[in-house]
Amino acid sequence: MDFSSKLLENAVHEMSQLPGIGKRTALRLVLHMLRQPKEQTTALSQALLTMRNTIKFCKSCHNISDVALCEICANPNRNEKLICVVEDIRDVMAIENTSSFKGLYHVLGGKISPIDGIGPHDLNIVSLVDKVKSGAVDEIIFALSSTMEGDTTNFYIFKQIQDYSVTTSTIARGISVGDELEYTDEITLGRSIVNRVPFESSLKI
Amino acid sequence: MDFSSKLLENAVHEMSQLPGIGKRTALRLVLHMLRQPKEQTTALSQALLTMRNTIKFCKSCHNISDVALCEICANPNRNEKLICVVEDIRDVMAIENTSSFKGLYHVLGGKISPIDGIGPHDLNIVSLVDKVKSGAVDEIIFALSSTMEGDTTNFYIFKQIQDYSVTTSTIARGISVGDELEYTDEITLGRSIVNRVPFESSLKI
Repeated sequence: MDFSSKLLENAVHEMSQLPGIGKRTALRLVLHMLRQPKEQTTALSQALLTMRNTIKFCKSCHNISDVALCEICANPNRNEKLICVVEDIRDVMAIENTSSFKGLYHVLGGKISPIDGIGPHDLNIVSLVDKVKSGAVDEIIFALSSTMEGDTTNFYIFKQIQDYSVTTSTIARGISVGDELEYTDEITLGRSIVNRVPFESSLKI
Repeated sequence: MDFSSKLLENAVHEMSQLPGIGKRTALRLVLHMLRQPKEQTTALSQALLTMRNTIKFCKSCHNISDVALCEICANPNRNEKLICVVEDIRDVMAIENTSSFKGLYHVLGGKISPIDGIGPHDLNIVSLVDKVKSGAVDEIIFALSSTMEGDTTNFYIFKQIQDYSVTTSTIARGISVGDELEYTDEITLGRSIVNRVPFESSLKI
């Protein structure tokens, strides 16, 4: 694209570095900013800068937090012997929304994905294994997405902690509540039959 | 959404003010920034701030420009008596890409759209009419999109300049080159028949 302004070109270039935002979308967003009051662009820039430079991660669960120990980890009413392993803060937010989990989280910060150059040492795995080794954990729930990378990560962690006295589980895979059987893919349907649950326990929820 | 960090919440909020970016997309973008080096967020923030605060508009055509008179207006090889009226810089870029136009542009900065609260006085119309009044223009080409707002804007400007000795034209509407007749909508096809061109002139391009 041939811009008439270096400033505009630069702004569009930086904007298009974000995932899923191409040059055209970036130009549309930048032109929108030009039509809005200057204060709005200042607020956006400041918010991004402040966030990037001063954000902290919880020293225990590695979730994003404004304080050293996040609200969830600092809550004495939660079961600290039950740890749910998730990929990032979005998963924490999703599970918190269900109000079904009263344990703590451990945020890995990603999944093992050789194709993206992400190995085990790029993730917060060592601190999780240390927690298990210290005997402070009764159960680890793996709640990563059900993909090749998620399963690899689960298995990698499992191998490291299997010799310690800790229960491991994964969240149930099955047909979504409200979904029709005939439109469900074979693998999900197959798993939901293999991992069937006693009828009584399905009545509890 | 319940964020565990005010800084994160603030960044997501500002990001989601942009058109077409909801809270979820904003969160995805912000989390991406957290995984990238700090320099990238700094570069983005700086580029946006600098652009918003120091960008200029060409004093003649109102296009975005780093100098007082844009490259196109300052080019002595272009026909300054032929002016193409467009909505914004994206249209200038699109027409420049065709290499078919050697006149100058006049960027309105939008279209008359009462529903969005945009009236004639929010657009760069007065300076266009002044150019026509001064007698410096032979032909005005309306190149706004073919919508209700575009047609309204064309007509508003036309009413203001019709008493002066200036030719007015609009860009041709018709079937796209390479398109099949049977899939074209009726209005476009109808217009392309009414506004048919002599066969010899279609051979020139």
